[in-house]
Amino acid sequence: MRQNYDALDAVSGLNYVELTPISILARASDAYPKHPAIIYGHRKYTWSELAVRAKRLATGLQTLGVERGSTVSFMAGNTPELLEAHYGVPMSGGVLNAINVRLDAETVAYILEHSDCKVLVCDTHYSATVKQALTKLDHPPMVVDIVDDQSQAPEGNGEKLGQLTYEELLSKGFTSEGWGYPESEWDALTLNYTSGTSGRPKGVVYHHRGSYLMSMGTIAAWQIPKHPVYLYTVPLFHCNGWGHIWSMGIMGGTFICNRVISAEVIFEAIREHDVTHFGAAPIILSMLAAASDEVKFRPDHTVQVMTAGAPPPSKVLEEVAKLDMNVIHVYGLTETYGHVVYCDWNPEWDALPIDRQAEIKSRQGIRFPMMDAVRVVDVNSGDEVAADGKTMGEILLRGNTTMKGYYKNEDATSDAFKGGWFHSGDLAVVYPDGYIQIKDRLKDIIISGGENISSIEVESVIYQHPKVAAAAVVAKPDEKWGETPCAFVELKAGEDASEDEIIGFCKDNMAGYKRPSKVVFMELPKTSTGKIQKFALRELINNGQA
Amino acid sequence: MRQNYDALDAVSGLNYVELTPISILARASDAYPKHPAIIYGHRKYTWSELAVRAKRLATGLQTLGVERGSTVSFMAGNTPELLEAHYGVPMSGGVLNAINVRLDAETVAYILEHSDCKVLVCDTHYSATVKQALTKLDHPPMVVDIVDDQSQAPEGNGEKLGQLTYEELLSKGFTSEGWGYPESEWDALTLNYTSGTSGRPKGVVYHHRGSYLMSMGTIAAWQIPKHPVYLYTVPLFHCNGWGHIWSMGIMGGTFICNRVISAEVIFEAIREHDVTHFGAAPIILSMLAAASDEVKFRPDHTVQVMTAGAPPPSKVLEEVAKLDMNVIHVYGLTETYGHVVYCDWNPEWDALPIDRQAEIKSRQGIRFPMMDAVRVVDVNSGDEVAADGKTMGEILLRGNTTMKGYYKNEDATSDAFKGGWFHSGDLAVVYPDGYIQIKDRLKDIIISGGENISSIEVESVIYQHPKVAAAAVVAKPDEKWGETPCAFVELKAGEDASEDEIIGFCKDNMAGYKRPSKVVFMELPKTSTGKIQKFALRELINNGQA
Repeated sequence: MRQNYDALDAVSGLNYVELTPISILARASDAYPKHPAIIYGHRKYTWSELAVRAKRLATGLQTLGVERGSTVSFMAGNTPELLEAHYGVPMSGGVLNAINVRLDAETVAYILEHSDCKVLVCDTHYSATVKQALTKLDHPPMVVDIVDDQSQAPEGNGEKLGQLTYEELLSKGFTSEGWGYPESEWDALTLNYTSGTSGRPKGVVYHHRGSYLMSMGTIAAWQIPKHPVYLYTVPLFHCNGWGHIWSMGIMGGTFICNRVISAEVIFEAIREHDVTHFGAAPIILSMLAAASDEVKFRPDHTVQVMTAGAPPPSKVLEEVAKLDMNVIHVYGLTETYGHVVYCDWNPEWDALPIDRQAEIKSRQGIRFPMMDAVRVVDVNSGDEVAADGKTMGEILLRGNTTMKGYYKNEDATSDAFKGGWFHSGDLAVVYPDGYIQIKDRLKDIIISGGENISSIEVESVIYQHPKVAAAAVVAKPDEKWGETPCAFVELKAGEDASEDEIIGFCKDNMAGYKRPSKVVFMELPKTSTGKIQKFALRELINNGQA
Repeated sequence: MRQNYDALDAVSGLNYVELTPISILARASDAYPKHPAIIYGHRKYTWSELAVRAKRLATGLQTLGVERGSTVSFMAGNTPELLEAHYGVPMSGGVLNAINVRLDAETVAYILEHSDCKVLVCDTHYSATVKQALTKLDHPPMVVDIVDDQSQAPEGNGEKLGQLTYEELLSKGFTSEGWGYPESEWDALTLNYTSGTSGRPKGVVYHHRGSYLMSMGTIAAWQIPKHPVYLYTVPLFHCNGWGHIWSMGIMGGTFICNRVISAEVIFEAIREHDVTHFGAAPIILSMLAAASDEVKFRPDHTVQVMTAGAPPPSKVLEEVAKLDMNVIHVYGLTETYGHVVYCDWNPEWDALPIDRQAEIKSRQGIRFPMMDAVRVVDVNSGDEVAADGKTMGEILLRGNTTMKGYYKNEDATSDAFKGGWFHSGDLAVVYPDGYIQIKDRLKDIIISGGENISSIEVESVIYQHPKVAAAAVVAKPDEKWGETPCAFVELKAGEDASEDEIIGFCKDNMAGYKRPSKVVFMELPKTSTGKIQKFALRELINNGQA
């Protein structure tokens, strides 16, 4: 009877243990103490050594006054320090804020101030930007310097900005302490600022429970085997490197670190370390596909590659398949800890022609095991759209890997969570098998004469034009049609094309009403992560400059 | 700052979703709707069909008055009904109590009464026992009959005991309802009675959170791939079939059901259904190893086998390896949802001779990813024992897959949880690499002249005697030594041996002080699950009968 079952209370720490990625390090150091955890050039750490360094980092930070809920920011590349921080900062009670190293001084200053940063750990490689950022702050944080003898920076290392180095901080720490589990699994774990395609970046807060479940769900969906060798090409400041720092830890993985990512570096890592997994934006895959035969290396095992951000083009998929790379296409946002939807491959599709396979692989797919629900709904009615592969709606999400909220931004949080769903702002269609495919950002859709025009669709046609390097399409107000597509095009070096040529090409390759009414040739404005800043293009239109 | 992070409250159902195995069915029916979930002879259900049947079961049970915290008992084999119940009963709010079908009427009556059973679903195959059990109850539960046309019972099906059949119950249910998630992930999910090697069985309560995390952790440790084909040889009344009904669901698995388990059935299932995984006690593995060549079948893929209960003998491991079966040895108790420790294989050991491999594989190993801690401590001091492979201590456990508690048994619960650890009652040693190996049950250890003698060690020597079929060793009070080992031996059919012969054999094969002081030849008393009842042997000694 209910009361008899309910009488059994949880015993904290015994049969109710807070879910936390910290437990991953605790177990890995017990289970795989001598197995390599991190390899970065001549620096190598086993899982037990990583555990010692993380404990020292945690207790070292505490000597600097870090306590539960203190923000600890890192301005660092994918080097051992930032990997260690993904365990050590939470173990101190602090919240890890990995800052995008490509940001400008003003934005870095904004993040340091908005995040209430208590300690900033900065690789001297980035000291020029950070020094400038610090001058803008009324209450600058304490600074700890990472001095990396393998920096390989063409300009050499920058100057030290703080009173002690990272290694000195570790030597202030000790290893006798416990694991520093959070008081609650709902406690904040990390703080990740969005890249800010529109306005100020927002601080997305992750919690321990979410990242733990993300790690478990990723293992199941990606079928990560024991002792994977993971090449960390994805920056750790992007959704905590897609959380792989934790999921690979459960499987006793080895992380291969590099500061610089190039086709040479990736192939060399695969050759030297038998890399089994990496994550990469499609642009990296294109780079690998386009590498020269001397650079390319085909290992005697399949390399599993997770890609996100844009559908991988069929040509690229075909090329990397020849290198025995198997690509899984995933979708997610900073607000969902990264990947929450993936194109789960049906073995029946292996028999399809490669271009058809690529077409399917460009779909975002179905939800990861740790996600509770994904819906695509009409933005007006809120009803689920027909699963016809045509009707567009906004992707709504629910699940334990949805952010805790935006830091100090109640309005944005309640707006994102309105109606009990997380609103992705992405428009997608649903296929009859339930797989979703993203068509556009909600705010990028163009409504012309009552018809929805996907800016992505128009862009993809323009991209097929041989002279085009990059393209972005946004809505331009129009008296007759309401809106019409306006295309901004960056041509390949040395090429020349006319407005009519581009519009004519579009007319020949898509429904006429979708063709741009105007084409502007220019170098496109991009964010520090390489995304085209459509809001800047819209400003050009609003200011009458386009 | 802490208050800014803490200000972000969880939104129930959005970024805080109760962990529950029910979500596994919800996702599998979305992700793999047409993939087979259950195959039982001519009955086949896809994941979407299983979802429909589970919803009908849940709502059907509600029409019988089942609500949150009602106990729903099943007396059934591993047929689709009991698999469905693992999703459908929790979806009704009820708690699933799968009863061991080998129990006698009196124990079944005890369980039905103690569990406050509201509805009993009974396969007519077991109606003789159940009918007798029901007569012993003052307030018998409602009975629903499973009538199985594939029962293959030599004696034919038994009689119906209730007012409606299982299929009629499903037809009373409907499919329009939601998924019936629990109010809290701490809510009771199932109630599993221990087999009762000593006294009355105790009711172990599992919660939704624990079973969900068990499923995720099992996927990681066992590296379960997508679409496994799982032969359900482990009875579902044992720790809910080791929880594989849920973990395999995450991976879109197919369950192959059979009522009768034999070498023929297992090999035929592997042949017909390309079985990839199954669980089996070592006795089943011995059966497979001993099968005739006509019965044996070696598939063209490796079959992953999970074994528990006793270390698999090296001879058996060698034999099943020839059949391309890869055995993983796990350890756990009903109180820990089943397996929580496993002999995680180090690829370096592949190069060792097979008997050395078997020796390592007989160790229980390290903790599963979802477990928080495993310690082996001196029973007197409570200190961790030396990791020398020799010093024995009791295994203590902590983690989210530790039971909610014993149903209506506060004393036993607080005793099991004393000092903030779950006390396994098992004695083990720890090797330098952290792997544990069980040496005995705490209550079975024999203390003779101040020396600990493992009853298991003495038994394993006696088992090597060619005439011995089974053996059990318990402590016998002794004026001089305190205790000495007393051996109870069951000889193979047609064999004859003397007490001196057995004692002499022991002297020749182990330290002299460990040899039994007395040998009693008899048929050994066993529980319904085949475990030897040492408490009955101790009673013989206490009564002066041995």
